[in-house]
Amino acid sequence: MIKKNIQRIIQYRMCLLKFQNLGFDRIFSYTLAKEIGVSPEQVRKDFSQFNLRGNKKAGYKIQDILDKINELLHKEDIHKIILAGLGNIGKALIQYKGFIHRNMQLVAGFDIDPAKLKKNCRIPVFKPEEMARVIREEKVHIGIIAVPEQVAQEICNQMVEAGIRGILNFAPLMLKTPPEVIVQNISVCNELEALIYMAEKPAGES
Amino acid sequence: MIKKNIQRIIQYRMCLLKFQNLGFDRIFSYTLAKEIGVSPEQVRKDFSQFNLRGNKKAGYKIQDILDKINELLHKEDIHKIILAGLGNIGKALIQYKGFIHRNMQLVAGFDIDPAKLKKNCRIPVFKPEEMARVIREEKVHIGIIAVPEQVAQEICNQMVEAGIRGILNFAPLMLKTPPEVIVQNISVCNELEALIYMAEKPAGES
Repeated sequence: MIKKNIQRIIQYRMCLLKFQNLGFDRIFSYTLAKEIGVSPEQVRKDFSQFNLRGNKKAGYKIQDILDKINELLHKEDIHKIILAGLGNIGKALIQYKGFIHRNMQLVAGFDIDPAKLKKNCRIPVFKPEEMARVIREEKVHIGIIAVPEQVAQEICNQMVEAGIRGILNFAPLMLKTPPEVIVQNISVCNELEALIYMAEKPAGES
Repeated sequence: MIKKNIQRIIQYRMCLLKFQNLGFDRIFSYTLAKEIGVSPEQVRKDFSQFNLRGNKKAGYKIQDILDKINELLHKEDIHKIILAGLGNIGKALIQYKGFIHRNMQLVAGFDIDPAKLKKNCRIPVFKPEEMARVIREEKVHIGIIAVPEQVAQEICNQMVEAGIRGILNFAPLMLKTPPEVIVQNISVCNELEALIYMAEKPAGES
């Protein structure tokens, strides 16, 4: 399944959990479509791939869809993640308590600053030299890069060599990786620039 | 210009600045294409829309492209941004020093916690009740939502009513806004889930 599709499936899941928390057992394709910003046809098409059919009068059973999505996402497993860089972003990630509800676990952090190694921290923190060992011992496949731009490619190379197959990158550069390694970039500045362009244009002078 | 295109243009810019910093004056379409992960044809097509033509032997002048991109993005203006929520993400954003290099400025933060109002902070921090006034007085069009999920929609409504036209949303929900308001969501958990699915699948048991 391609990235765009899996991201849509993850959005369904988020939305379905919300409705379930609100006390609903069933949902219509058009309700979900409106929440996510896609067409009801797209929702029905996605769910038919799970062999799920809605009832015209009562919609889909929320739990049935969630079961299928969880199965697809291997939600029963805990997915281990490591974090390189304990700056502001790294600290915010460590303090975030929501990972475990989504079956993800930050198992270790890495930083060159010895002061960060000593601090009381929710996860064990090591020197970067220990990264390859921890990745191999813990069998981690997912890494987060939140180090400065200058060292990001080097950290990325070390991660890939030790067995990381998916990288979430906060550093402002395009990492070079072998084709089998998947990189997802998060850049607040890039998102803001695009937003500024789109949001300010209608009232702009050009 | 649609969102995907503008995001690509912003990636070119990031990459061109990198090469310029490394001392290069000129760049070939295929070099840039490889860095960004698009085809050289796409790069040439994008640049031809700026009326820029590369020289087969010497490539494009980096400064020429940057000038055109900056013009498109109105980089000469400083774009004001407000931030709702001074939790971990909000704090990381406030401490980030890179905004001004991209002509963006966080002009104010908002939080219900009085302790956060008193703290020494790089930007002025107000109670949420002051948000509409600040947005109007400062003529801000862009807002960042980094508040808990439960209050995110309410904050969003207040922002929109006061004149915000673009929202960067870190809260884990789909905000409802009028069609003319653009929302961009950043969810570390969603990105990680997609990454886990894509990165772990090849070696998975299914």
